[in-house]
Amino acid sequence: MDNFKFHAYTEILFGKDQIQQLPMVLAPYGKRVLLAYGSGSIKKNGIYQTIQNLLKDFELIDFPDIEPNPHLTSVERGAKLCRDHKIDVILAVGGGSVIDCSKVVAAATFYEGPAWDLVMDSSLITKALPIVTVLTMAGTGSEMNKGAVITNTETRMKKGTGAWVTIPRTSIMDPTYLMTLPEKQTAAGSADIFSHVLESYFKSTPDAYIQDKISEGILQTVIKYAPLALKEPHNYSARANLAWASSLALNGICGSGKNGSWSVHPIEHELSAYYDLTHGIGLAILTPSWMRHILNENTVDKFVDYGLNVWHLSPSSDKFLVANQAIDATEAFFKSLNIPMTLHEVGIDQSKFELMGKRAVELGGLHYAYVPLNLEDVVEILKACA
Amino acid sequence: MDNFKFHAYTEILFGKDQIQQLPMVLAPYGKRVLLAYGSGSIKKNGIYQTIQNLLKDFELIDFPDIEPNPHLTSVERGAKLCRDHKIDVILAVGGGSVIDCSKVVAAATFYEGPAWDLVMDSSLITKALPIVTVLTMAGTGSEMNKGAVITNTETRMKKGTGAWVTIPRTSIMDPTYLMTLPEKQTAAGSADIFSHVLESYFKSTPDAYIQDKISEGILQTVIKYAPLALKEPHNYSARANLAWASSLALNGICGSGKNGSWSVHPIEHELSAYYDLTHGIGLAILTPSWMRHILNENTVDKFVDYGLNVWHLSPSSDKFLVANQAIDATEAFFKSLNIPMTLHEVGIDQSKFELMGKRAVELGGLHYAYVPLNLEDVVEILKACA
Repeated sequence: MDNFKFHAYTEILFGKDQIQQLPMVLAPYGKRVLLAYGSGSIKKNGIYQTIQNLLKDFELIDFPDIEPNPHLTSVERGAKLCRDHKIDVILAVGGGSVIDCSKVVAAATFYEGPAWDLVMDSSLITKALPIVTVLTMAGTGSEMNKGAVITNTETRMKKGTGAWVTIPRTSIMDPTYLMTLPEKQTAAGSADIFSHVLESYFKSTPDAYIQDKISEGILQTVIKYAPLALKEPHNYSARANLAWASSLALNGICGSGKNGSWSVHPIEHELSAYYDLTHGIGLAILTPSWMRHILNENTVDKFVDYGLNVWHLSPSSDKFLVANQAIDATEAFFKSLNIPMTLHEVGIDQSKFELMGKRAVELGGLHYAYVPLNLEDVVEILKACA
Repeated sequence: MDNFKFHAYTEILFGKDQIQQLPMVLAPYGKRVLLAYGSGSIKKNGIYQTIQNLLKDFELIDFPDIEPNPHLTSVERGAKLCRDHKIDVILAVGGGSVIDCSKVVAAATFYEGPAWDLVMDSSLITKALPIVTVLTMAGTGSEMNKGAVITNTETRMKKGTGAWVTIPRTSIMDPTYLMTLPEKQTAAGSADIFSHVLESYFKSTPDAYIQDKISEGILQTVIKYAPLALKEPHNYSARANLAWASSLALNGICGSGKNGSWSVHPIEHELSAYYDLTHGIGLAILTPSWMRHILNENTVDKFVDYGLNVWHLSPSSDKFLVANQAIDATEAFFKSLNIPMTLHEVGIDQSKFELMGKRAVELGGLHYAYVPLNLEDVVEILKACA
């Protein structure tokens, strides 16, 4: 097991009606609250009004219209609001995009240079406004970690950043808020959770056994409950298990103690950057092709573990048989969530494969992935999903 | 899934030589450090001297001789030291006993009444000195939670307490420190981890699936690595997995979302209170008998899950067969760790069974356990271990 620092210090308030605690949660930070949200679904489902009613004693400054794959321009807009209104705390209400954007806003408020600096060099993030979140989508895990992914639409660059100070202080997770999600968001969020766990699971550290066992548990949770959430959107058990899986998949429990770069996320970031694709959809499309690309004599045992412990396949003396069955099961699972499983279906042609591949290798550190990937590898993986 | 608050905010610095970070960790709290430890094994293994060397710029006040099943008198002694020396931060170097004692010392320093009040009524704990720990034993999980168990030797009462403010701020976990543990401590600590997970696993919340899957993962980790740590005390992988299992078993990940009292710990606390038994040994002795006592038509499915997913038993149409095999496997596992599996072997006769049973029911809330237990139940369980 590699050395690690684990510090997922977010207070999680989980369950029905936890939002009632919001005034108590915000009070220690001050009265001036930046209310960050996305396209306005929180106005339709009533959460916006609930917050207005609960926070009558606070001064709320609206920061609306944060887009999926949040843009640098939104970060700049938010940071200006924070400075202009002397904001004390950011209340991020939404999914990963709103929370990611809020994290960089929180840091950019105190940074004198261009906000993009903080994305390119996370070590520049030394101070940030406190962030409290109300989760309305399960998937990114941003509610309980320091990570944030921002897109620079000018340069078409999508990149992750984050520092220990950008971890949300409190996240309110009411599974009932997830019941009205569009089917596509439930599917994409579930694929995102699944992929986060896989990114840690497929690492070369040989003895991070407890991490792997916990990872297998979270993967099984997604396999059980994602289809149920699609079939019965108001199933509380399904929403609750997926919500908590979202946080635990990426708060460090699965990944701490296992060094090395991720494999699929860096490639997906290029798809989203160039085509504004929904992140979880891109991950689902790429994952089976990536798996088939890296399956070899050195990796087959890991795929067998994955097949036996996650998919409960029958053991066989033919290890590659089990490994390929596991990959097929992964693909079938994403398909069962009604995710389109080719790039063609989501309107992406081959014209930018080289360009995206080059940047994925550079920005994503793919040379340090479980199986190191170079430009040729990435283009092959992309072609296999075409 | 039941509503919950999760807030395991401890910073974990895990791995070889992490102790080098100690000065940086302590600095924000101040210069006056209470150095809490036990019988002095840290002097033999060199950790004491390492700390003295690292903390030359700090003022260290020794608080030695904290006993296993720490006594109220030690809490009072520690709190007096903190007040007399205007301590800024407590550095607890040891296992659960040292850390538990330090937690109540940290709170008692600010409490004007008798320290035992804080054990009897945890709501009285509103302020505490910051605590930093260096773990030298894996088992109790105290390094990453708020709980503390204190024994009042006058009244022979052993009881848990704790508040959110008593969670350690940072815990340094260097698995190499566990390599020189006496065999009995490795075994007892492993049984403690195992029991912590079982206490959460056997609850009546029907849909805390992700918690159960993670629990099964941690149980499998203990099953794999506890025998290896006994066989090869210097096996880093074994020590690392057990150390991290210790924290994750009881930081809320397994238990949050599942209400109800624990079952075995309250009974064991009486054994330790009256006979100063090593906690993990008592848990191991009690667990199989408790399992056999509560196995019935309502609980058998849970035992089958446990048998199939943790012990990898073969499925059978006879559910009770699988359940009993799982219980037998549990007992055989503890035996394989060289734990004496009867009360007789550890010098406990039947003379206090009624007395201990009565108090276990009262203090431990056994009426709210997975299968509610009354005095008769507890005495039967104790007799079955005699």
